[in-house]
Amino acid sequence: MPSTVPTRWYNLNADFPEPMPPALNPATDEPVTADDLAPLFAEELIAQEVSTQRYIDIPQAIREVYALWRPSPLVRARRLERELGTKAKIYYKYEGVSPTGSHKPNTAVAQAFYNKAQGISKLTTETGAGQWGASLAFACALFDMVAEVWQVRASYDAKPYRRYQMEVYGSSCHPSPSDLTASGRELLDRMPDTTGSLGMAISEAVEVAAGDPSAHYALGSVLNHVMIHQSVIGEELLEQLAAAGEEQADIVFACAGGSNLAGITFPLIGQNLREGTTTRFMACEPEAAPSITKGEYRYDFGDVAGLTPKLMMYTLGTDFVPPAIHAGGLRYHGMSPMVSHAVHLGLMGATAIDQDTSFRAGVLFARSEGIIPAPESTHAIAGALDYVTTSARPDEVVVIGVSGNGVLDLPAYEGRV
Amino acid sequence: MPSTVPTRWYNLNADFPEPMPPALNPATDEPVTADDLAPLFAEELIAQEVSTQRYIDIPQAIREVYALWRPSPLVRARRLERELGTKAKIYYKYEGVSPTGSHKPNTAVAQAFYNKAQGISKLTTETGAGQWGASLAFACALFDMVAEVWQVRASYDAKPYRRYQMEVYGSSCHPSPSDLTASGRELLDRMPDTTGSLGMAISEAVEVAAGDPSAHYALGSVLNHVMIHQSVIGEELLEQLAAAGEEQADIVFACAGGSNLAGITFPLIGQNLREGTTTRFMACEPEAAPSITKGEYRYDFGDVAGLTPKLMMYTLGTDFVPPAIHAGGLRYHGMSPMVSHAVHLGLMGATAIDQDTSFRAGVLFARSEGIIPAPESTHAIAGALDYVTTSARPDEVVVIGVSGNGVLDLPAYEGRV
Repeated sequence: MPSTVPTRWYNLNADFPEPMPPALNPATDEPVTADDLAPLFAEELIAQEVSTQRYIDIPQAIREVYALWRPSPLVRARRLERELGTKAKIYYKYEGVSPTGSHKPNTAVAQAFYNKAQGISKLTTETGAGQWGASLAFACALFDMVAEVWQVRASYDAKPYRRYQMEVYGSSCHPSPSDLTASGRELLDRMPDTTGSLGMAISEAVEVAAGDPSAHYALGSVLNHVMIHQSVIGEELLEQLAAAGEEQADIVFACAGGSNLAGITFPLIGQNLREGTTTRFMACEPEAAPSITKGEYRYDFGDVAGLTPKLMMYTLGTDFVPPAIHAGGLRYHGMSPMVSHAVHLGLMGATAIDQDTSFRAGVLFARSEGIIPAPESTHAIAGALDYVTTSARPDEVVVIGVSGNGVLDLPAYEGRV
Repeated sequence: MPSTVPTRWYNLNADFPEPMPPALNPATDEPVTADDLAPLFAEELIAQEVSTQRYIDIPQAIREVYALWRPSPLVRARRLERELGTKAKIYYKYEGVSPTGSHKPNTAVAQAFYNKAQGISKLTTETGAGQWGASLAFACALFDMVAEVWQVRASYDAKPYRRYQMEVYGSSCHPSPSDLTASGRELLDRMPDTTGSLGMAISEAVEVAAGDPSAHYALGSVLNHVMIHQSVIGEELLEQLAAAGEEQADIVFACAGGSNLAGITFPLIGQNLREGTTTRFMACEPEAAPSITKGEYRYDFGDVAGLTPKLMMYTLGTDFVPPAIHAGGLRYHGMSPMVSHAVHLGLMGATAIDQDTSFRAGVLFARSEGIIPAPESTHAIAGALDYVTTSARPDEVVVIGVSGNGVLDLPAYEGRV
């Protein structure tokens, strides 16, 4: 195993200037306790959820799986720089090399490991475009478990490849809303033609896990422990920038989303807070689901049925159903509470980008760098291209988080080339 | 750039115990000359085609592109070993990490580079499942060229993602036979319902390149220079086995195909011939296109229309139209002359594997190792699994060439899980 696979995760909760507002039990509006979460999550994940420890050791079994694709490459985008005629230095950190093509396995592997260690044999979850569902299925296969996945119906119908992927890994996938759960049936009664949403699918997956003692629930974004696992991205980035001779990143663009953004930025935000570096951060969200730039910062549910704890976050409201844009992974009404807190404290900026601009950036990136980015990732690229061509100083170090490859999203590029 | 990107290609023509029979001009049956090939290929590629130099330096511009994904990982398949209950040591060399998901860019990048250096702006080619067409499109994008690709109609209709990929990279793709060429029109007249073959598509691509002075032709397999470029795989394998503390590979399984097989085995065959190592090699071909195990070793054309030189190789005859099996990259009537010569001299064995057995091996591999292999690659895995479970000694070092990932071939796995 390469010695360069990180040995620890970073937890921004150790360094926030003020603590995050707690998640609230929806029945009592009191802070959620470990007991509240125990039916759904492994003990170690619950401990991480409320931890303020700065670094958390990565178990060896997880590092061995990470070694399949980590450290992910940090690439100097010299051909893109030439194409743009910029003197800024553009780097991209590429998560598309994972077995399922995105950053999602970083937490899927950790969640499968901790649940398996506690004797759990099945994980339920929701998925949008399918990156998360496929990633959890991948992780479950490696730890002799199965995943049962509810996929937003719009993506289920349009993108069957991810479902095939889950099935090859030995897991199952249902369109959401489904008639397999009470919350799904209620949604189908009320909105028989709905194309679904992540919030609806969460309700279904949580319901099934809550009713089965051998099952737990797994979430691919939003929660603190997910952000912690994704910090391997930023931890590697710090090492790789140092190895490339760069004192610091001047500005980092990442798609929001949530967990990839947190993963690549939080270790650098921590460095800013502790060591006085001056890296800036820009969350790039789609205009079609602009939770940060157009939402409110308030307590809201994570799902549609109101089964999850109430979270303090930027939200468009649980009734918000985003249009069926191609970046399925960004179709969510809320934003990770840790990311929201970082934005609220002024530690990170945000911008909203329209779909056409994103795809144009993706095509330019593909033709210059040779890698076709995921639709989600094109938002980060578009944000960076705008900055580089309008504002960047010579030798400024611009880092783009490319959260995944677009291989299974190629139909989204059709007609845009 | 990592210093571990190979600096040289290996050429087995330096070490063959007897020289290969030459390619013949189809008009004269005399050995092909450089002048015969000049309308289609860059000078440097023609020089490599007939070279008997053992090592050829890899130009720096090519190494810089290789660095995007090379060296490709050599992974000890410990979870698969446990699943099989074997005491043999199984390694796999994984080419699926390339931007198009297979080994094909290893030669695509080289061919684009040498053609660009000679002022060529367009490369024509054929493709089966589409790995090669997409890989050439990728390479052309990086060197500011375009590819024009004829894709076997069966794959063109069933697998549009590869075409989207070519288009994102700025290239174009037509179903073959097409009405864009004289040979295509002749084929359509004769067989209006044909699902196409690689041999037919080659005829179309060659015809267009021969008629356009700004265009050359590119072949993704068969020819000697392609085998030379693919030797980066085996050169890396030798380094990686040594780094893992293994004296030698005892047996190597690779799908045939041709170029991936040549790439991973030829540097080790050379080592056997020069240094007395005793590595064995097994070419794993599909029962549906068994050129080595059921074909004849004789001179034959590379294409259907008889436009290419006559090559001494194992062949099923140019009229052979393989069934529309999922491993599109293996649907060819012949076998690379260098590979054929190696088999003919007894330097390599061969076995034919049926499609169901291959896919079963692919699913087992995916669930234990976490990587979904390309349908082509499942043949190598199936060959290795049969050997390991019936014949392998404890501590024997078994290497599998996994030529690509199966992400864009996921529909082929449907109904097999």
